[in-house]
Amino acid sequence: MLSGQNAGAAALPAVTLRPREERDVQEGRLWVFDNEIAGIRGDVQPGGLVDVFAAKGVFLGRGFCNMRSKIRVRLLTREAEPIDRAFFAHRLARAIDLRRRLGHFEACRLVYGEADCLPGLTVDRFGDVLVVQIAALGMERFKDVVVDVLADLLHPRTIYERNDLPTREKEGLPQQTGVLYGEEPGLVEIRENGLRVLVDVVGGQKTGYFLDQRENRAALAPFSSGAVLDCFCHTGGFALHAARYGADTVEAVDISSAALEMVRRNAALNGLANITTTEANVFDLLKAYQQEGRQYDLVILDPPAFAKSKSALQSAARGYKEINLRGMQLVRPGGFLVTCSCSHFMTPPLFLDMIKRAAADVGRTARVLEIRYQAKDHPIGLGAEESLYLKCVILQMD
Amino acid sequence: MLSGQNAGAAALPAVTLRPREERDVQEGRLWVFDNEIAGIRGDVQPGGLVDVFAAKGVFLGRGFCNMRSKIRVRLLTREAEPIDRAFFAHRLARAIDLRRRLGHFEACRLVYGEADCLPGLTVDRFGDVLVVQIAALGMERFKDVVVDVLADLLHPRTIYERNDLPTREKEGLPQQTGVLYGEEPGLVEIRENGLRVLVDVVGGQKTGYFLDQRENRAALAPFSSGAVLDCFCHTGGFALHAARYGADTVEAVDISSAALEMVRRNAALNGLANITTTEANVFDLLKAYQQEGRQYDLVILDPPAFAKSKSALQSAARGYKEINLRGMQLVRPGGFLVTCSCSHFMTPPLFLDMIKRAAADVGRTARVLEIRYQAKDHPIGLGAEESLYLKCVILQMD
Repeated sequence: MLSGQNAGAAALPAVTLRPREERDVQEGRLWVFDNEIAGIRGDVQPGGLVDVFAAKGVFLGRGFCNMRSKIRVRLLTREAEPIDRAFFAHRLARAIDLRRRLGHFEACRLVYGEADCLPGLTVDRFGDVLVVQIAALGMERFKDVVVDVLADLLHPRTIYERNDLPTREKEGLPQQTGVLYGEEPGLVEIRENGLRVLVDVVGGQKTGYFLDQRENRAALAPFSSGAVLDCFCHTGGFALHAARYGADTVEAVDISSAALEMVRRNAALNGLANITTTEANVFDLLKAYQQEGRQYDLVILDPPAFAKSKSALQSAARGYKEINLRGMQLVRPGGFLVTCSCSHFMTPPLFLDMIKRAAADVGRTARVLEIRYQAKDHPIGLGAEESLYLKCVILQMD
Repeated sequence: MLSGQNAGAAALPAVTLRPREERDVQEGRLWVFDNEIAGIRGDVQPGGLVDVFAAKGVFLGRGFCNMRSKIRVRLLTREAEPIDRAFFAHRLARAIDLRRRLGHFEACRLVYGEADCLPGLTVDRFGDVLVVQIAALGMERFKDVVVDVLADLLHPRTIYERNDLPTREKEGLPQQTGVLYGEEPGLVEIRENGLRVLVDVVGGQKTGYFLDQRENRAALAPFSSGAVLDCFCHTGGFALHAARYGADTVEAVDISSAALEMVRRNAALNGLANITTTEANVFDLLKAYQQEGRQYDLVILDPPAFAKSKSALQSAARGYKEINLRGMQLVRPGGFLVTCSCSHFMTPPLFLDMIKRAAADVGRTARVLEIRYQAKDHPIGLGAEESLYLKCVILQMD
C-alpha cells in the first residue's frame, strides 16, 4: 500500500541542493531542477518520494523525484509529513473547497497542479464528469489514490483520464486516455455564464473545453454589438457569448471542421441564429478580409499557443504581431479588439509591447480597457511564474 | 475666441524632435519631454498650441506646449486639425459614449486624460455632479470650453473644480477649487454595486471618491465571510462591500477621523450593523494585532501611494512589504488577502515580487487568485505606461 511508503523508521532518500540554490524554493517554487542538486543520498525509486535539504542541511520539503526529468523534484509539502491517502484527501478537499467558494462549481478547474500544491495533477469538472490529467511520474504512482478520493468527495458519474499529453514523454510516461471510474462520459452539457455548452471530454482539445477563458468570455458583455469576428473560435466559447450579449452577427472562424460543427450545435442549443461559421486558416482569412476592407465592431483573437518553448518565442512573437495588426485593421474606429495569448513565454509585458507595436504599425491609437488573465479557478503559485499563462487584453481602437 | 487660435493662414509654432526621438510618440505616447526636442520655431505662448515634427520633418501631431514643464508638449491629435470647441466636443462625446457602454454610468470616470486623448483633463461623474481636474496649463486655457461642452452633453446640476493638485505647480498653475457651473454640490449620494455611498466632492480626497476600485470592490464577493479587517479604509468602499457580501464582522481602519465618520454614515445608510471603525496608524495597528495573535478570514490592504516618485521607490517598497507581511500573518490558514498599490512606480512585476518575498519571509504558501487593475473607465493609453497605476492582487494563504 502506497500509504506506507514513507511511514515507519526508514528515512526517505535525501536530495541536497547546491549552496544558495534554496532561495527560489523558499520563495514558493515547488520545482527543483537537476542543475540545482549537489547530491542524492539513498535509493531513489522512479517517481518516488524524497526529502530536500539546503546545502547547509535545512529541511526544505518533501516531494516526488524523477531522475529522467530536468524537473528533478516536485515538492508536495514543506513539512516532514506522511504522503498517504489522508494527505491527498486533505489537499484535494482544500482545492475543491476553494472552487465551491469561487462559484461556477458545476464546470470549473478543481485542481490546478502546483498552484494547489498537487504538482503534475489537473482535474476539470464538467457537471458529473471529472477529467484528470497527470503530467508527473510521481503523481502517476498515486493515480488510484487520487481517483478514489475524488470519487469519495464528489460522487461523479465518470472520472476520465486525458493523459494524451506530449509532456508525459519527458517524464517517461505513456500517453493514454480512458475511463478510470464510472461509465463512458459521452458528450457532456455544461452551463457557462448562463449559456449551454456541449463538451467532448473524449475527443475535444485538452480536457474538452477551455475553462480558463470563462471570465474573459463574460467580460465581452459591454463590447458585443454590431458585427463580430471570432478568430480561432474552437467550439464557440467567445462567439456564443458575443451572440447572447447583443451582437447582430457573429462570424466564428476556425481551421477545424469538427470544432465548427460543435459551434453550430452549441448555437442551436442556445437558440442563437446570428452565428455563422467559416472554416479557414485565420492568417489567410484576416489578410483577405483586410484587402476587402471589411470592418467589424468587435474582433476576437484567441490563438493556440504559438510559443510552446522559449526558443520558439521570436517566431511566435511575429505570429502574434501579424494576427494582431491585421485584426486591428478590421476594427472600425471606436470598435473593440479582444486579444489573447495562452503561451506563458509570452509574458504580460511582452504581450502588451507587441500590442503597442502592432497599433503603431497600423497607425491606430488605442486604449487598453482591461488586462485580464486566466479564470481564478486556475490560480498562480507564488514562485511558479509559468502557472500564469493566459492573457486577455481588451482595447478600444480609434 | 480660442477656436480661432490655429485657424487661418498663420502656422503654429513648430517643435522639431532630435533624431530618432519620434519612436515613442509613434508608438502611442502623447508626451514630448524637454530633452527630446532639437528646436522650436515660432513664438510659443504659455500652454499654447504647437505642431510637432520628427527630425526628418514628418508631422507627428498637434498639442499644448509648456516651456515651464519637463513634459514640454502634450499631444492632442496626430492630425493637422483645428483645436476648437468642435474638437473638444467630439473628444468629450467619445469619452462619454465609452463610459455609457461600460455601465456604471451614474458614477464613473468620464474622462481619463491621456488615455482619452485629452491630456491633463480628468472628469468624474457622481450622479448629477461632475468634478473636473486639470493638470496641464494648455488644458487650463480650454477650461471654459470643456465646462461648456460638458454642460451641453450631460446637463449636470453642478460642475465642480478640484484643482487642488500639487502637480499643477510644475505647470505654473495655481491650486484652486470651486463651482464652475451650477450650484454648490453638497454631499452627493451615488450607487456602487448596489450599495449607497456618500461622496464629499468638496472636502474628500482627490475628486471625493476612489472610483478606480469599483470593480475590485465587487471582486470581494466570494471572499467576504467571517472576520474582515479593512486597512486604509478611507470612506469605507471595501468595508461596505465585504459587509454586504456576507462578512460577520468588518473592522475598518484609517488614520482619519473624518474618513471614519463617513464610513459610519455609509454603513448606516445601507443598514449594515456589522462594521466597526478604528482610528489608527495602520503600521502600528498591524504590528499590535499580530502580537496579539489575531486572525482574520479576509484582510484588505489599500494604502495610499507610498511611492510618489521613482526615487522614493526603495523606501516605498519597504513600506509595502512591511504591511503585506504583517497583513499575511493576520490571515488565518485558508483565508484571503486583498492587497493593492496605487503607485505606478510600483509596477505589476515589482508588486508581485514584493508579495512573493513577503510570503517567503513569513513562511506561508500562497496562491494568486486574481491580478486586477483599475476599473475600465480608467483606461490605459498604449505608450502611456504611467496611466496603469492601480494593482489589486487577491491571494489565498495556506
